[in-house]
Amino acid sequence: MPATPWTLHPDRALPADPAVRAAAREILAETAPLPIVAMHGHVEASLLADDAPFGDPATLLVTPDHYLVRMLVSQAGGARAVPGVRGPQDLGVRPRDPGAPYETDPREIWRRFCTAWPLFRGTPTRFWLEHTFAEVLEAPVRPSAETADELYDHVTARLALPAMRPRALFERFGIEILSTTDPAHARLDHHAALAAEGWGERVVPTFRPDPLLHLDRADWPAQVAALGEAAGTEVVDYASYLAAIRDRRAAFVAAGARATDHGHLGADTTPLDDAEAARILAAGLARTVTADEARAFSAHMLFQMAAMSVEDGLVMQLHPGVLRDHDRDVVERLGPDVGYDIPVATEYARSLRPVLEAFGHHPGFRLVVFTIDETVFSRELAPLAGVYPAMRLGAPWWFLDSPDGMRRYREAVTETAGFANTSGFVDDTRAYLSIPARHDLARRVDAGYLARLVVEHRLDLDEAVETGIDLAYRLPRETYPAIG
Amino acid sequence: MPATPWTLHPDRALPADPAVRAAAREILAETAPLPIVAMHGHVEASLLADDAPFGDPATLLVTPDHYLVRMLVSQAGGARAVPGVRGPQDLGVRPRDPGAPYETDPREIWRRFCTAWPLFRGTPTRFWLEHTFAEVLEAPVRPSAETADELYDHVTARLALPAMRPRALFERFGIEILSTTDPAHARLDHHAALAAEGWGERVVPTFRPDPLLHLDRADWPAQVAALGEAAGTEVVDYASYLAAIRDRRAAFVAAGARATDHGHLGADTTPLDDAEAARILAAGLARTVTADEARAFSAHMLFQMAAMSVEDGLVMQLHPGVLRDHDRDVVERLGPDVGYDIPVATEYARSLRPVLEAFGHHPGFRLVVFTIDETVFSRELAPLAGVYPAMRLGAPWWFLDSPDGMRRYREAVTETAGFANTSGFVDDTRAYLSIPARHDLARRVDAGYLARLVVEHRLDLDEAVETGIDLAYRLPRETYPAIG
Amino acid sequence: MPATPWTLHPDRALPADPAVRAAAREILAETAPLPIVAMHGHVEASLLADDAPFGDPATLLVTPDHYLVRMLVSQAGGARAVPGVRGPQDLGVRPRDPGAPYETDPREIWRRFCTAWPLFRGTPTRFWLEHTFAEVLEAPVRPSAETADELYDHVTARLALPAMRPRALFERFGIEILSTTDPAHARLDHHAALAAEGWGERVVPTFRPDPLLHLDRADWPAQVAALGEAAGTEVVDYASYLAAIRDRRAAFVAAGARATDHGHLGADTTPLDDAEAARILAAGLARTVTADEARAFSAHMLFQMAAMSVEDGLVMQLHPGVLRDHDRDVVERLGPDVGYDIPVATEYARSLRPVLEAFGHHPGFRLVVFTIDETVFSRELAPLAGVYPAMRLGAPWWFLDSPDGMRRYREAVTETAGFANTSGFVDDTRAYLSIPARHDLARRVDAGYLARLVVEHRLDLDEAVETGIDLAYRLPRETYPAIG
Repeated sequence: MPATPWTLHPDRALPADPAVRAAAREILAETAPLPIVAMHGHVEASLLADDAPFGDPATLLVTPDHYLVRMLVSQAGGARAVPGVRGPQDLGVRPRDPGAPYETDPREIWRRFCTAWPLFRGTPTRFWLEHTFAEVLEAPVRPSAETADELYDHVTARLALPAMRPRALFERFGIEILSTTDPAHARLDHHAALAAEGWGERVVPTFRPDPLLHLDRADWPAQVAALGEAAGTEVVDYASYLAAIRDRRAAFVAAGARATDHGHLGADTTPLDDAEAARILAAGLARTVTADEARAFSAHMLFQMAAMSVEDGLVMQLHPGVLRDHDRDVVERLGPDVGYDIPVATEYARSLRPVLEAFGHHPGFRLVVFTIDETVFSRELAPLAGVYPAMRLGAPWWFLDSPDGMRRYREAVTETAGFANTSGFVDDTRAYLSIPARHDLARRVDAGYLARLVVEHRLDLDEAVETGIDLAYRLPRETYPAIG
Repeated sequence: MPATPWTLHPDRALPADPAVRAAAREILAETAPLPIVAMHGHVEASLLADDAPFGDPATLLVTPDHYLVRMLVSQAGGARAVPGVRGPQDLGVRPRDPGAPYETDPREIWRRFCTAWPLFRGTPTRFWLEHTFAEVLEAPVRPSAETADELYDHVTARLALPAMRPRALFERFGIEILSTTDPAHARLDHHAALAAEGWGERVVPTFRPDPLLHLDRADWPAQVAALGEAAGTEVVDYASYLAAIRDRRAAFVAAGARATDHGHLGADTTPLDDAEAARILAAGLARTVTADEARAFSAHMLFQMAAMSVEDGLVMQLHPGVLRDHDRDVVERLGPDVGYDIPVATEYARSLRPVLEAFGHHPGFRLVVFTIDETVFSRELAPLAGVYPAMRLGAPWWFLDSPDGMRRYREAVTETAGFANTSGFVDDTRAYLSIPARHDLARRVDAGYLARLVVEHRLDLDEAVETGIDLAYRLPRETYPAIG
Repeated sequence: MPATPWTLHPDRALPADPAVRAAAREILAETAPLPIVAMHGHVEASLLADDAPFGDPATLLVTPDHYLVRMLVSQAGGARAVPGVRGPQDLGVRPRDPGAPYETDPREIWRRFCTAWPLFRGTPTRFWLEHTFAEVLEAPVRPSAETADELYDHVTARLALPAMRPRALFERFGIEILSTTDPAHARLDHHAALAAEGWGERVVPTFRPDPLLHLDRADWPAQVAALGEAAGTEVVDYASYLAAIRDRRAAFVAAGARATDHGHLGADTTPLDDAEAARILAAGLARTVTADEARAFSAHMLFQMAAMSVEDGLVMQLHPGVLRDHDRDVVERLGPDVGYDIPVATEYARSLRPVLEAFGHHPGFRLVVFTIDETVFSRELAPLAGVYPAMRLGAPWWFLDSPDGMRRYREAVTETAGFANTSGFVDDTRAYLSIPARHDLARRVDAGYLARLVVEHRLDLDEAVETGIDLAYRLPRETYPAIG
């Protein structure tokens, strides 16, 4: 690969057909300059509260990126293996066992990543990183075994500049509002600090109570204790459990939160009667709960979360269907989120029925549903979002947040649900430097889809431009309104 | 949106690529003028028997169209809500409770629809309505809040013209034959009246016994009573039940019917032994039947319907996989078919096995299978239709009867089943004025698909033209032959 | 259809867009001349060991081709039926009952096939046969009822030429290595004969033990007896059963085998404990095994096969998800593999977990997973192959080995798993003359996909060329390495 000048082509990710591309350019010209509305992501509030310089290139860009780690690991031992990489620990992921070895030299981790660059051909990781390197880091060369050190030194120097501090980038990226994801027991101190500095409407928390809702997990008692502590009450039964959750939701609302987020394995929302719920919760506290009871309770609690959303106005986000920690030994040794989460087939039509029948027409309720099982877009989710006022179909998520994935989403969804029943783009990223890349790619793919409709005479160009602005900006704003 | 002159682009819904589009035009030039064969639809025979002028624009075009109603409802309460629309009742759907309020002013309903026009961007509803407005109603302006009244008055005036009566439109649309859908107990009086006027071969009934086959539904006793009355026998046991059904099928055949139609939740066709079937039917009559028994009986009856089709020659149409009436409260209040039917994953390979093993090679049997679960096109339905002589794969149905849905269908099906194992287009519409739009769109999408094969040198142009004519005209004729 | 000169267009199966096509041509120019690596197929070793002239055209090209047989059968009795064809027996498939009639005249079978030529429009069969006729058989005319006899005589004459002997074609086709598929009890005499003639590294066996792993099948005792005989031990219990299988695997390795092949209905790989496995095996020997036990045992044995692969280095190929012999009466009369195998939905994420957790990171293990259920490509298989070092995602299989099927596979897989986690192309064919056609088509489709990435500025042309060579040549070589 020659060290070509590292610039991004203005037509990247636009459709090949010249007429479609021309129309896409016209749409993109109107959407590319729009502010970024990032209502669902995993950047930490501390990053912006502290506004400290970023660390080394590997710790910033390689080790925490599960897309990247998994690709390098996937080739271990094979003909294209990156030397030295047998597992996530060789890319800096720290084992739970303090005595277990792992790579601690960021330059060595960086070299491994650069050597692996060809593996990312055709992936969104490649697209996002190209954007990050060219636009954010002004890299002089592409990653490769040969250029690794030069690139490392360049990025290190860049990261030391004041202009590369998180808040400076926030401005430069044109972020209008950024939502973090926070556990129910979070004190939201960083959000408070940001608010005190006038950033309260720019960085808002999201209430994510997942660990509290699965009674049979090992860390549930600790989570419940932390919840009680944060809420200032002891959780001793179902009533105090609900009260503590309500308390924390109110605290989140007060801190500017607009949404909750729920990552259950299935989408089941079947409620239990109160006595049964109380009985199971008690079994959870007594650590005698069964797996079936815990599953039923987590479904029940999704229903309760919907009911509380009706009360307090928090948008409810649901993204089920991922079998987390597929290799239990890897997760035992290295922890979660290192690339071993695998999507599974997920049912929505029957599972969401309880919540939609109860609250689907309530003017105070908003449910945004995400999936990585793309078979349900045309079959279940577009038909549901296309009739229930409360429901919006979330942007294509995780592995589907990709050029062809996003195109297929629009093709599968639009004909049944239109555009206004979708959430608009959410980036779902923990990689702060990639936020512009992700919104850029989404706007390009949507411009390409809309442009095809224009050239096929299914939409006028002015409508397509207006719709492009909806998808990039207005719909995410409308989907996640401020409360109060 | 400017009030552009309301004309349809001749290349609408054709592929963007110039070479593919040019070939598609050549194919379309041969298929566009072909007569319409509408072998599966939901237009009432009374419409043509009475040949009365249509009512007001809203009652004709808005209230009965579930695609349209659901889209407006889906935005209720949100940032893009149409003022006044909270549910189907606000678009004229009459509640079951005679005291419950609903909108009765057609002009007000019309205004709501026109205001909602931007919501239909990218949907087939938009395409169908554009065609209807431009070609059938010669509308001077597009729908919008501003143009609603002008459009209402224009359409009202048009509908008063003799040329807009149902039979005149039948001729103008170039309909060669139209199949209605009728309950088993229907006396087919309108069909008889039409036959007496020489329209007997142009409007034919379809036998749809669904309510008779689900023993645990509340209206089953009434349905069975109606069946018995129509058949002139009392249904007192399994034998008289089957005999009454046979009697009605014969009456339908005599009235020109060519097909039956079955809309079960699942595709199961497993037969019971006669004693067990008789026992469950008796439990149905005694109203002691269980849900499991009723489900088993309905599967058994699909097998019986196939067996009767072998006897009497009626083509058997099966379109399972829709969870009807998803919001039971809405349906309780407003009735079925107002937009709350949601597709679910459906198994076909094992479910159809009993019928296909028994009759799949019988020269007198024809089974046409439809689905809205597009995952089964390449996995199950194309492989099945591609080997069993009795089976044809129905056109993409409901939410998939759309530009991209129909394209994906051809792409998923053709490589395994070819073209001749598909049914050709069926419109499945209850919107009489949209019939030409639906056939027009299907012919365009098929022309585009065939043209791509031509430009990719996978098919010669003369073959593509011949195949286009097959899909638009010859295959639906062959799939639903006249009996006797 | 005019008898156009029978030549193949150089741009066949390349994308329509001119810029994409131009880039695809550049990629194809580099991949088209590469040798053929055919690591998974169903050509018999005896074909090359004997190197005898092929028989008549029908016996070579029609009767054994289940794609072809099923298409002709699917139209039986209908408006487009080929006269004389009611079932596979009318195309030369010999019934099990020696008294049952079947067509024995190859010329008559040939005429039926030629008459049916229009049925193959849009199918890969058409593409493969065009290639075979034009490039291998130098046919002067296309198949049709009119040209059938001329074509028969021409092909007959061609097949008599020394240049059309299997080994001469092997050279002409540019096959570098060909893998056969062989039962566990195979003595591999033909492979030995080939090795003695210096062909040992060009034709290698594959170990396929399926019938041994399903204890409740009628032929299991005979299979086990054959296994014991081949292994030189009597199988009397679980230990001797495993030992015999190990013995045969070793014999296959010694004969140059590189892989095993497993065609179970599901993908379950859950192991049993040894005592339970031994108990079920004993029940199998006693013919008292239940269907559930047999199913659990077959899953257990997949786990054992993986464990043995870790020991002996044979690549493990798994291709589940086909409901074989859908019409049991047809199979009873005519045997398997005549077109009645139907794909079903198949779960992979949970099913493969036992094997992947146990061996997914083992440097000595390689698992290649195939599917015909394309819904799992983006949902389960690409995510799994994209993280576990041992796993590769096999080429699109059977009904998906088609222009649009292969394109969808790349679109669904690449963004999550990249290219290097796929197997590269395998042809899976038993039709020897079609081998070049299948590799040609795959190279064209991959060139088209890569070219689109180039024109969309997602990949540089030099990268695309290199990747095209990977997919066509390097990856299949790397996926199936030689042992020892």
